[in-house]
Amino acid sequence: MYICDEKRMADKINTFSQFGDAGHGGITRYSLSPEAHQARDEFVRRLKAIGAVVETDDMANVYATIPGTDPTQKRIVMASHVDSVKNGGNYDGILGVMSAMEVLETIQAEKIPHRHPITAMIWTNEEGSLYPPAMMSSGVVTGKFDKEAVLSSKSILDPSKTFGEALEKSPYKGAAENRLSAEKYCAMFETHIEQGPILEAEGKDIGVVTCVLGMVNYRIRTYGQADHAGTTPMQYRRDALYAAAQVLLYLHEELDKLDPELVYTTGEIKCHPCVHTVIPDEVDFSIDARHENPDVIRQVVEIIKSIPAEVAKCKTGFELAWKRDTVYFDKKLVGYVKDSVDELGISNRFINSGAGHDAQFVSYMMPTTMIFVQSKDGHSHCEEEFSSVAQCTAGASVMLNAVLKLDADS
Amino acid sequence: MYICDEKRMADKINTFSQFGDAGHGGITRYSLSPEAHQARDEFVRRLKAIGAVVETDDMANVYATIPGTDPTQKRIVMASHVDSVKNGGNYDGILGVMSAMEVLETIQAEKIPHRHPITAMIWTNEEGSLYPPAMMSSGVVTGKFDKEAVLSSKSILDPSKTFGEALEKSPYKGAAENRLSAEKYCAMFETHIEQGPILEAEGKDIGVVTCVLGMVNYRIRTYGQADHAGTTPMQYRRDALYAAAQVLLYLHEELDKLDPELVYTTGEIKCHPCVHTVIPDEVDFSIDARHENPDVIRQVVEIIKSIPAEVAKCKTGFELAWKRDTVYFDKKLVGYVKDSVDELGISNRFINSGAGHDAQFVSYMMPTTMIFVQSKDGHSHCEEEFSSVAQCTAGASVMLNAVLKLDADS
Repeated sequence: MYICDEKRMADKINTFSQFGDAGHGGITRYSLSPEAHQARDEFVRRLKAIGAVVETDDMANVYATIPGTDPTQKRIVMASHVDSVKNGGNYDGILGVMSAMEVLETIQAEKIPHRHPITAMIWTNEEGSLYPPAMMSSGVVTGKFDKEAVLSSKSILDPSKTFGEALEKSPYKGAAENRLSAEKYCAMFETHIEQGPILEAEGKDIGVVTCVLGMVNYRIRTYGQADHAGTTPMQYRRDALYAAAQVLLYLHEELDKLDPELVYTTGEIKCHPCVHTVIPDEVDFSIDARHENPDVIRQVVEIIKSIPAEVAKCKTGFELAWKRDTVYFDKKLVGYVKDSVDELGISNRFINSGAGHDAQFVSYMMPTTMIFVQSKDGHSHCEEEFSSVAQCTAGASVMLNAVLKLDADS
Repeated sequence: MYICDEKRMADKINTFSQFGDAGHGGITRYSLSPEAHQARDEFVRRLKAIGAVVETDDMANVYATIPGTDPTQKRIVMASHVDSVKNGGNYDGILGVMSAMEVLETIQAEKIPHRHPITAMIWTNEEGSLYPPAMMSSGVVTGKFDKEAVLSSKSILDPSKTFGEALEKSPYKGAAENRLSAEKYCAMFETHIEQGPILEAEGKDIGVVTCVLGMVNYRIRTYGQADHAGTTPMQYRRDALYAAAQVLLYLHEELDKLDPELVYTTGEIKCHPCVHTVIPDEVDFSIDARHENPDVIRQVVEIIKSIPAEVAKCKTGFELAWKRDTVYFDKKLVGYVKDSVDELGISNRFINSGAGHDAQFVSYMMPTTMIFVQSKDGHSHCEEEFSSVAQCTAGASVMLNAVLKLDADS
């Protein structure tokens, strides 16, 4: 078994935390921003220094590869992202990139023999925070998204600017022939923070990820009548927000009867006209529900369909916004991860991913899996994100040994 | 008894509906906009044509006065506004201005003798739609608002522009000495659409307004924890929107036990971060409650204070945003209106005003009252606003006779 280096990992965490430092413990590092380019420059500088060859593709994804002893073998890739949400933390995404770097650095420092070329990779715009959608480049490279469509994605801060323009200006834009492909790569690993409280609650450092949960996302709507707050007696009112509150509590009550592993969230609400002196005439809220078992998801949809057509004198409606089926990771790779973490004597458990990751798209193209590192208090997408240096290094060690097991077996 | 002219009223309704016509039955006519200036120009043109003298004050309020037979008497003023909300209707505000014009036109056309000078007036920026707050100029003239503060009010469409700049550019900006004052004016009447469904439901054309309801406006807040929608098991969640829905329904349940004349509205809701994949960590909604009796308002406040400090594992909070006491209109003027509408044989009832109007500020300065005209379906602040020509003319006739009663008695 090989072990990665805590001091080197700590240095990377400290260094990368400066790129986009928002001044109070976290970062804002939108994809293709100057801050994201600083992070890419550092990635390239450090990996070239240990002998990696750097390539970029037409989506500005970056690949840094060290050769193996057998030139006929496909590459093994370890990938994640350097971009963040607004006021994000120092671990989401970047931990996977730093872990991939740490694996290459350990291999080179300790001259660990391996047959396959091994690649550390940065995916462009996983968060989609400035230019939606999320997982943009893995979506394009795996054929899930249309490239022309994502090029015209508008900046949420300045709709006159597009992702395509930002890509055109990036020094990291390269050739389509360098894209990740099943012809050139045999497997992908992604290390990521858990973004949830399960590992910490159970005292485990590492999660062996088995799948990305299936999900549905619906919009729930109520339709009332806008009237003046001061002049409309209560009995004449059709208040869409009053109705929406009832529907929201109805959904909680019914969904709580389903499998306890189900997670569901009503995170977004829009109220029209949203003026304190006007009775709301339309409310629209989101419901996102996730579970590994498609039968449970079907039960969720049945409950959404059972919302009474009229609540508090308001008509109701619902609409499917999007859905995905559960994506199972490659059993062989999951086994390598499990064996590695056990052999390293690191506390761990199997876990599923409730969040989406580039790995879920790539799993349609080649064997893929993920490794989770404990998140303190389960926080992510916020400045409170934290995983200890020891835990981050443990994650990298697990990935290193899993990569070497694959290298030896294939 | 004197009667106003339906044909002349219909012509005014048709003409003024063109200024700011939004193309589908209503208008957008922000204060001091080119459209609002068109309406003012038409007001001035028509009233000058019948011999009125036009003055303007430092807030661009416009006064058109016809002389009376006794030059020692103070003026009687009839006032309302020509500005609208975004996508408002053809009656709110402008009906009071057209009614005041119609009264002067009837007096001149029929050579009705009167001792007092009589004034038709336009208040600037009653709605506060572009430059908050509402009732801006009556607030300044009656000393409720600080003039310097309102001059710096920023446009909600372009925060680089202020009300003061728009006022400076208006050809209607005049001298402060022309302001409405108790020295120069003895009473104010304001005719307005009801903006509610009570008159229509009871088959009454006219409302004799006795007061503007007292009110309180609170912000209710719930505080949770933002976490990832996919990775946070239900038992770890503190969902501020789930808590807010419970608090909202609690308020409905408790407030519905109070006096049935109470009206209350939860019209505005803000959810943070309001993203479908994130559990909300803060929700803030408004509650506006109105009743004539301050004891009922006190009961409302007690109920707000009784919200449990913790709901669904989320802390709760509340904050008074603003309040006003019930404003009673002048008994003598209310009596003139009631006598006039009865003598004219027009169906009517006493009514209170749930909405705020310039009249409520002016009532602190001089005897003031209001006349309501039935609103079809109770709608206002929307393109569906409608009152028939007959009803609008009836409202003007009531105001004419009430003014003449005051003229005779004082």
